[in-house]
Amino acid sequence: MAESAAPLLATLRTIVGDANVLTAENDVAPFSTDWRDRYRGRPRAVVRPATTAQLAASVRCCAEHAVPMVPQGGNTSLCGGATPHEGGHEVIVSLTRMNRVRAIDVENATMTVEAGATLSSVQQAAADAGLMFPLSLAAEGSCAIGGNLSTNAGGTAVLRFGNARELVLGLEVVLADGRVWNGLRGLRKDNTGYDLKQLFLGSEGTLGIISAAVLKLFPKARTSTTAFAALAEVGDAIALLGLLRQTLGDRLTGFELISAECIELTRREFPAVPDPLPGHRWYVLAQADDPALNSSLGALFESALSEAIESGVAQDATIAQSDAQAAELWALRENIPEAQRREGPNIKHDISLPVSSIPSFLDEASAQLDAAFPGVRYVTFGHLGDGNLHYNLAPPAGVPGEEFLDQAPRANRVVYDLVARFGGSFSAEHGIGQLKRDELERYRPAIEIELMRAIKRALDPQQLLNPGKVL
Amino acid sequence: MAESAAPLLATLRTIVGDANVLTAENDVAPFSTDWRDRYRGRPRAVVRPATTAQLAASVRCCAEHAVPMVPQGGNTSLCGGATPHEGGHEVIVSLTRMNRVRAIDVENATMTVEAGATLSSVQQAAADAGLMFPLSLAAEGSCAIGGNLSTNAGGTAVLRFGNARELVLGLEVVLADGRVWNGLRGLRKDNTGYDLKQLFLGSEGTLGIISAAVLKLFPKARTSTTAFAALAEVGDAIALLGLLRQTLGDRLTGFELISAECIELTRREFPAVPDPLPGHRWYVLAQADDPALNSSLGALFESALSEAIESGVAQDATIAQSDAQAAELWALRENIPEAQRREGPNIKHDISLPVSSIPSFLDEASAQLDAAFPGVRYVTFGHLGDGNLHYNLAPPAGVPGEEFLDQAPRANRVVYDLVARFGGSFSAEHGIGQLKRDELERYRPAIEIELMRAIKRALDPQQLLNPGKVL
Repeated sequence: MAESAAPLLATLRTIVGDANVLTAENDVAPFSTDWRDRYRGRPRAVVRPATTAQLAASVRCCAEHAVPMVPQGGNTSLCGGATPHEGGHEVIVSLTRMNRVRAIDVENATMTVEAGATLSSVQQAAADAGLMFPLSLAAEGSCAIGGNLSTNAGGTAVLRFGNARELVLGLEVVLADGRVWNGLRGLRKDNTGYDLKQLFLGSEGTLGIISAAVLKLFPKARTSTTAFAALAEVGDAIALLGLLRQTLGDRLTGFELISAECIELTRREFPAVPDPLPGHRWYVLAQADDPALNSSLGALFESALSEAIESGVAQDATIAQSDAQAAELWALRENIPEAQRREGPNIKHDISLPVSSIPSFLDEASAQLDAAFPGVRYVTFGHLGDGNLHYNLAPPAGVPGEEFLDQAPRANRVVYDLVARFGGSFSAEHGIGQLKRDELERYRPAIEIELMRAIKRALDPQQLLNPGKVL
Repeated sequence: MAESAAPLLATLRTIVGDANVLTAENDVAPFSTDWRDRYRGRPRAVVRPATTAQLAASVRCCAEHAVPMVPQGGNTSLCGGATPHEGGHEVIVSLTRMNRVRAIDVENATMTVEAGATLSSVQQAAADAGLMFPLSLAAEGSCAIGGNLSTNAGGTAVLRFGNARELVLGLEVVLADGRVWNGLRGLRKDNTGYDLKQLFLGSEGTLGIISAAVLKLFPKARTSTTAFAALAEVGDAIALLGLLRQTLGDRLTGFELISAECIELTRREFPAVPDPLPGHRWYVLAQADDPALNSSLGALFESALSEAIESGVAQDATIAQSDAQAAELWALRENIPEAQRREGPNIKHDISLPVSSIPSFLDEASAQLDAAFPGVRYVTFGHLGDGNLHYNLAPPAGVPGEEFLDQAPRANRVVYDLVARFGGSFSAEHGIGQLKRDELERYRPAIEIELMRAIKRALDPQQLLNPGKVL
């Protein structure tokens, strides 16, 4: 392999400079393993272009040598979407040196940014210009915007602003043969033929490599209100969602469901977080934001919660009186994954359902899982407003985590079969990567897979872009 | 032709019934001409399926006979997108009998509706369920939702709710060979492979025939405020847009620019409409809507307009005090196209630009057009908030309209060349159809056309779906 790789590597070195073609084991190691340490690959090299021209030349060089490429941003995929295979054939194309904000147009409320910029740097650049970029998720300090776009990231503000796909006006993409498509248009209306950017958004680098994007920016929130409500049943959470939407309209930006078990778990591992409404079965953490002047947000929120309590939809509720209190309430939610990790491995599911089906789904799923795994414990939380649940299973008391993990295929089958029956999705926001290719084959109709393959063949006939991911 | 068509027509008749295969000249006439009477075609037949199964069987039958098909909804295309060619080869597939609302899920805030339902019937069904479907445009009484989706319609609420593409969660599509892809999922998050629905949205029936869709619904507005402001310059309109966005946030749903010439024109043809702020150069008609309880919308709007006047951004302003006054203000805007029509033909342009470029564009465009067409009169209005202008040219006084229309190619070249230089689009919301295929070839990079053709070949290898449209 070393012999045949030599001409390729020599050309790549002339394109990006010696220092930016990594081949030593220590140098490539950080790029070769996903951050959860589930996948380990062995790339032929890591190439780190600094400009679109360098990226295009690198891709052209790989294509001419028929060498497969793995595009990588911040390397935070939860599905092994950016990790190479073990064969030693693939070149990792790391976008992290392409991290410039190329332009901000305040009047047009747009930002043009390169793919390797971290999500938090994009948020900051928007804020510095007096505006706001709403995409927000746990990995925002290290994930790259190019990865967010190519995986159509979700996060905590989807209820109001949509997924990453909906935040993009234009793209620059390096195609499989190294040619550059410059679609960096900053237009909110443009009906001139097929909307090509949609092909590259969410296709996990299998159809082209996103090198830059024009993003939509929004007015900053001036007022934010965070509330926490205790509920008897999941169905009440859906009623509360309807009530808050009717009262607050567009101001409702987040609506998170949390089970009592999640609160107990978080407080066990993080005893400093408060327990504001102890003793209930379910909780909702809701946030509303208002960019308008003189907002009556707090009063509206309070009246909606009073109505919810009076009508029996909520059993109790509290509104954060300060930013510090709001942060404490969010800590209850945000510490769940880390608390889970500390208590040992879980069988995790990132599912979505029509909001209206969630109570029936939860009833049927727990009935089937109780029967299949007596004593199984449920760690159920998620973005209920989007129908997105993190439906995680912890081992029965006394069962070692690793032993329980061996049951994952059987548990997945129960959960995903039910999700399918309710018209849901087995991957709401994390994508397919390597992890869920089999589920895609199983749960999506054959005609859908066939259409995806036809698109793949049309755009990447040599099958060089991120092979073995998605399809 | 009649002989070779016989087996095809016989099969179609068995699928949809004799009454729903039209071939007599009088019967097919309403389907063969676009509503502006610019395009006239001659179809082999019009087939009118009532169900997805009938539609699929009809398409399969046409595909087996290698007969091209023209999908048609309400036949309101402004670009000849639903009109057959003259050769007598094509079958018009009319979707108007497929007009059922299949389901409304209030908790999930979604509606599943068939492609042939009129937009106004979709709006009404949402309202009857206590919710709101925000797509709104002049043809809503007759256009079909399937046509809206396959042309990615824009309209008056894009500023807040996005184009038609952003209002769709799932699609059912009949493919070029008659197979049905059922992607009717009602999920707000679903990252399971390529987002296939994006291919069919906005591709004008050239990649598949949309037969049904799952649409997003929203809370109804409880409060609406309409205001009218007088401005000295177009740049002031952009400043006012920024100010209203900062004050009203998401509540701003419409922001229409209107030139003094448009007001004069409308009042000449419709003397009953008011002239609330006479004597200024430019006007803005702005609307804000709030679904929240106890909205302070009116007060916020008033304070923003006061600030605009104090700071010199606006010269004067008025807020409608009743629904009737609001309707009168909107009549000033909505009667412009009819007033234009009454005064004779115009050279029309449906363009979009980055909002920040609009003042420079208008300056340069009028300088060039004044030189090329001395005395030309400008009818400039449009959805400024989306960067979308209807930039229409009326003949110089004394020049007959038809004679002026002969100059359209030369005028289009001036306008579209400038639009391209400013990074804009020559078709903001009306699409390509037959009308703008040459412009697509001229203004989009070759690589973009090539990508579109590759997609077309992948999904419609026989090139049977709406041939000669878009590509």
